[in-house]
Amino acid sequence: MNAEEVVRQALPLVVPTDDERKKAREAEKELRKRLDGTVKSPLEYRFLGSYARDTWLKNNLEIDVFILFPEDVPKEELESTGLEIGKAVVDEYELRYAAHPYVHGRVRGVEVDIVPCYRLKSPKKIKSAVDRTPFHHEWLKGRIKGKENEVRLLKSFLRAAGIYGAEYRIRGFSGYLCELLVVFYGTFIEVIKNAANWTRDTVIDIGRKKIYRKKELECLLVIDPVDERRNVAANLKLDNLARFVVLCRAFIDSPSVDFFVARESKAPSIEAILPELERRVVYAVEFEKPDIVEDNLYPQLERACRKLHEFLNRNGFMPLRSSFFAGKKCYLLFEVGVKEHSPLSRQIGPPFEDKEHIKNFLRKKRKYAVFLENGRFWAYRERKFTVAKEAIEYCIREEYTSMGKNIGENMLRSKILEGVELVYFEDLAFLASFLAIGDGNAT
Amino acid sequence: MNAEEVVRQALPLVVPTDDERKKAREAEKELRKRLDGTVKSPLEYRFLGSYARDTWLKNNLEIDVFILFPEDVPKEELESTGLEIGKAVVDEYELRYAAHPYVHGRVRGVEVDIVPCYRLKSPKKIKSAVDRTPFHHEWLKGRIKGKENEVRLLKSFLRAAGIYGAEYRIRGFSGYLCELLVVFYGTFIEVIKNAANWTRDTVIDIGRKKIYRKKELECLLVIDPVDERRNVAANLKLDNLARFVVLCRAFIDSPSVDFFVARESKAPSIEAILPELERRVVYAVEFEKPDIVEDNLYPQLERACRKLHEFLNRNGFMPLRSSFFAGKKCYLLFEVGVKEHSPLSRQIGPPFEDKEHIKNFLRKKRKYAVFLENGRFWAYRERKFTVAKEAIEYCIREEYTSMGKNIGENMLRSKILEGVELVYFEDLAFLASFLAIGDGNAT
Repeated sequence: MNAEEVVRQALPLVVPTDDERKKAREAEKELRKRLDGTVKSPLEYRFLGSYARDTWLKNNLEIDVFILFPEDVPKEELESTGLEIGKAVVDEYELRYAAHPYVHGRVRGVEVDIVPCYRLKSPKKIKSAVDRTPFHHEWLKGRIKGKENEVRLLKSFLRAAGIYGAEYRIRGFSGYLCELLVVFYGTFIEVIKNAANWTRDTVIDIGRKKIYRKKELECLLVIDPVDERRNVAANLKLDNLARFVVLCRAFIDSPSVDFFVARESKAPSIEAILPELERRVVYAVEFEKPDIVEDNLYPQLERACRKLHEFLNRNGFMPLRSSFFAGKKCYLLFEVGVKEHSPLSRQIGPPFEDKEHIKNFLRKKRKYAVFLENGRFWAYRERKFTVAKEAIEYCIREEYTSMGKNIGENMLRSKILEGVELVYFEDLAFLASFLAIGDGNAT
Repeated sequence: MNAEEVVRQALPLVVPTDDERKKAREAEKELRKRLDGTVKSPLEYRFLGSYARDTWLKNNLEIDVFILFPEDVPKEELESTGLEIGKAVVDEYELRYAAHPYVHGRVRGVEVDIVPCYRLKSPKKIKSAVDRTPFHHEWLKGRIKGKENEVRLLKSFLRAAGIYGAEYRIRGFSGYLCELLVVFYGTFIEVIKNAANWTRDTVIDIGRKKIYRKKELECLLVIDPVDERRNVAANLKLDNLARFVVLCRAFIDSPSVDFFVARESKAPSIEAILPELERRVVYAVEFEKPDIVEDNLYPQLERACRKLHEFLNRNGFMPLRSSFFAGKKCYLLFEVGVKEHSPLSRQIGPPFEDKEHIKNFLRKKRKYAVFLENGRFWAYRERKFTVAKEAIEYCIREEYTSMGKNIGENMLRSKILEGVELVYFEDLAFLASFLAIGDGNAT
């Protein structure tokens, strides 16, 4: 089957059904009625986002309504009035947090976000990220017309790979980025064909319709057509860019509808995991999850994970891989290459020519004699830790304050699972993937 | 005490007694008589070396006699005639090997070497290293006059540090080098004062009376005044240069007669060594010593040692130190920083942009899934060895043929002592020094 045929077959998977559209229109109608009764001049409301542009993914409907405030309204008033309006127009609301707190709720069973923002003359003047959304909509709405299903195909392709969404838990491709790519390349298939050749230093200048490479760029740069200072792909993780590029090549080589369907991750058997935990050197730092939003939690977990990883590395444990997980509890996972160290390590000293430093080096009281090697002095010193668990415990104890402001204290009370104790880890599929137990696909 | 006083006090330690000189003269007389009766024109004999120049160290007398052959005598004839003469003029001879085999023996209880060489017009034309000796003697004999005891002080200073002698077992300073340095700097104390500032890239041009530095030189270069292509310090090991320089500084800082007396190396107690062997990760590869001269054996041991060290390093065992020893048997010693490895190690794969290599990398059948990290593919692979002993055994088994032509086969039949088994090692003082057990002095 060629790519065009596959895409035709995939369409029913990604395009909302007539029933879904009808339900959406009814919710919209009801919502507009409520908003008309609530939002008074100089405030106004607008339907923005994927529902407004008809690019929402099947079974993924969420209506975004933005309440636009004049520029001179103080932030506090914007937030309180925004929440009031939100609460007034939706059923069963909850508060969520982005740039400002906002109301998430339902209208006629359809999910709705009511987001306050400022109405600005230029996107250059924005006060927070949500203020840009009206400009995004303006730029896109005419250009995306007729290409809505191309956007849906791309979103679905990404979602199946687990890299759809810019939120920190995912660090993939945002919906807005998907729409820009379809505008830039024209069709889903063109996006895929071109993305197969992207590199980490690729720059896509949407507004100027140019693509080029920029030395020493660390990950894809997509210049926002409404604000050239902004990288639309700023949250995209390099490995997720890599996943996408590799998948694009795979799709071109052998197109299939499977690329639009999330693979069911079979729960791995404990029988497969247990012997691995037994023979390898794996640790999980388990601690209470703080009550903060994911986009705040994940960077802290990432930071703590990186700090411990680097500490293990500096202490010669040859970390193989590390990762983090937030479920009921938080976890930092580590696998290291060294089961046990000798109690000694080498300490570098000065070269023999360096008179002054040698004096200091030789003056120190030591248990072992210093020695010369290749014209340089060396000494032995006692290792602080001979197994990685001791190093992890030490690093948490000494550095918990710099691990992340909401997780540091919790980490201090963490429990370290080791080896087979990890069978108590919450998500065995995640663990199996961390251990690279599986069928050889990149994770 | 200042340096000059110390030197005065050290003189009786280094200058031969009248008795020793008398014994030497009597032996010389007897030897000349025997030589006059044996060496016939066109051959001639000459007394060369430290005895001839009166620079021999107390209790270290050895008379060197060179038998000079015309240039057109074939090598085989030179060797056989040389041995014949040697055997004829000494008592209780044995054969030794340098450039040619030669006779070592005694005359009136004094040690004597009878060495054949060619008589050449220019040192540029030499056929082997011993042919240079007559030229060395010619160059030195007038210049060293009156400075003989300065040479003795320097030799003694070096000998006490264990770095006197250019032979491979020592890789220190030859007697000839000591004499050149005294000629260059004038006195023992001037040698010491100047050497305190030597660097590994120091060049001493004896003939042109110049000293300078030459970038990227790896160890001291002393240009032979009779042949500028030759480095008189060619056999000097960098760490022995370092030892000497550091000792010179120590002598300047606090001069003492102790610098001329070899420190008695106290035999270390088994009680001090045993707990170290127990907790650290130490191996000795023990094998039969081949029947070859030291200058041939040591480079082979060094090479085998380096090969195994590098193999341990490549396999992640973080070798701390390695060494070799030749006593009744041969030994290669290793201490490593890793007691036990995880059974897995990481294998680097291509970056995601590298389409072609990725295909190959992903095609391979693997037990574990490949994974992405920082935009690059990685895989796990099974380690061949989780403890260093396995790695040493493997490396010997696979590479014994390239370890050294006279030791390879023996190594194949070696026994690997591990940890406390090293109490059976021949020389506990050497072992203690290898383990850096001691008082903090550089070894």
